[in-house]
Amino acid sequence: MSTQKAAHAGERTTSLGIIVFPGYQPLDVWGPLDIFYSLSRYKKLSLAIIAKQAGPISSRVPSHSMSPGGPIQQSPSTLAPKIVATHSFDDAPALDIILVPGGGGNRLFESTNDTSIEDFVSSRYPELQYLLSVCTGAATLARAGLLEGRRATSNKASWNWVIQHGKNVTWVPTARWVVDGNIWTSSGVAAGLDMTYAFLKHYYGENDQEVKDTMNAIEYAPHTDPHWDPFSIVHKVPGADASGSLSDVTKPAGY
Amino acid sequence: MSTQKAAHAGERTTSLGIIVFPGYQPLDVWGPLDIFYSLSRYKKLSLAIIAKQAGPISSRVPSHSMSPGGPIQQSPSTLAPKIVATHSFDDAPALDIILVPGGGGNRLFESTNDTSIEDFVSSRYPELQYLLSVCTGAATLARAGLLEGRRATSNKASWNWVIQHGKNVTWVPTARWVVDGNIWTSSGVAAGLDMTYAFLKHYYGENDQEVKDTMNAIEYAPHTDPHWDPFSIVHKVPGADASGSLSDVTKPAGY
Repeated sequence: MSTQKAAHAGERTTSLGIIVFPGYQPLDVWGPLDIFYSLSRYKKLSLAIIAKQAGPISSRVPSHSMSPGGPIQQSPSTLAPKIVATHSFDDAPALDIILVPGGGGNRLFESTNDTSIEDFVSSRYPELQYLLSVCTGAATLARAGLLEGRRATSNKASWNWVIQHGKNVTWVPTARWVVDGNIWTSSGVAAGLDMTYAFLKHYYGENDQEVKDTMNAIEYAPHTDPHWDPFSIVHKVPGADASGSLSDVTKPAGY
Repeated sequence: MSTQKAAHAGERTTSLGIIVFPGYQPLDVWGPLDIFYSLSRYKKLSLAIIAKQAGPISSRVPSHSMSPGGPIQQSPSTLAPKIVATHSFDDAPALDIILVPGGGGNRLFESTNDTSIEDFVSSRYPELQYLLSVCTGAATLARAGLLEGRRATSNKASWNWVIQHGKNVTWVPTARWVVDGNIWTSSGVAAGLDMTYAFLKHYYGENDQEVKDTMNAIEYAPHTDPHWDPFSIVHKVPGADASGSLSDVTKPAGY
């Protein structure tokens, strides 16, 4: 973002919408959200947590069968912490930024023919400034057709499943996050924290002191190299850059 | 934990209780919780989210005055994401582990004479296997008298406020986390992720593959040195080890 635009971003209220669904991965949401929450001490931000229906949404994947009449499968992760969705897809406010998380529940959308998230994101995309995904949330963006002709990345442990989605997507196998136009996609789960820091520096300006102070306030030393991705090696992603290092140097923001 | 005990920990269901309160810091809870959630694919775990009253609990700090008749102060962070507490202090189940987070709401307990969290934690401590705190949650443990004669650490940005609490506590100024007996205290916010990984290796055994696989599944490369703490330098904590490095090498778990 140009310096002029970046300065402008600091003056008006930025409307953030985060999508949730049963079986979303907790940190996909709450990692970026903690940064936005902490930054709201300084910046004008508003937040909508958006789901098919407002109310409590559990991270436990609903019991399901992957085919009609097939065996019932239970959630692999048994814990069921809940976030409260403040809005439904029908009454969500105007949004500048949408963040789409991933998680085990993501895999049920196809078997249940549930296109509600991709429909919502597609319908809102023209008015958005930015669209962000974390983890397997990129599969939702791909299904929505929004990654066509674009570069993107996703969770490395679920890579082979994710890349079946979408048409004409250039999936980048070794990347902590990828930027293409106004769509930012991150690798799995914790990568959302690093993408969010990079995004906020883009949005508010590279040298915005409040963004840096926020990272140091939450005592998170971000990975700042988008090419750092040892997990593409760990999870044996086809085409991963195996010459990449498994280790990386992190530093507090601004040092 | 001995190898025998560690093996035992894998066989029975471990009952985890996480405390929340209005104005808790999101990542203090959801960082460790995402690790436990993801690990519950492999390990027998149960979860209770415990508050003064069950139901939705916001991270927004309630409007308050710090003295009787004093000026009303608004929450510094304006966003208000909500978690659902499943239990109250009165009906919480038997627990093996309690985790106490910090957050801006922590500072109101004294001005409102609210001792409910410290009372609950004190009353449950004798039956616990482990007590964990993240961030300014250590101030709650100190007020409860549980850190007397112990070493502990806490959030570095709020250090001078935290160390006013408790009697005969040895506050360790440069530490990502500190272990003293069965009480684990971490530095601020994101440090909870690193402490949780170290704790789980202690609890399930240093070479437990499922713990390592979980960290790689969530694509988090933990800081594994408890003495790594650049934030004690950044936030100018009195007595901090200024010879410490601001940077650190992280690696995927198990490499």
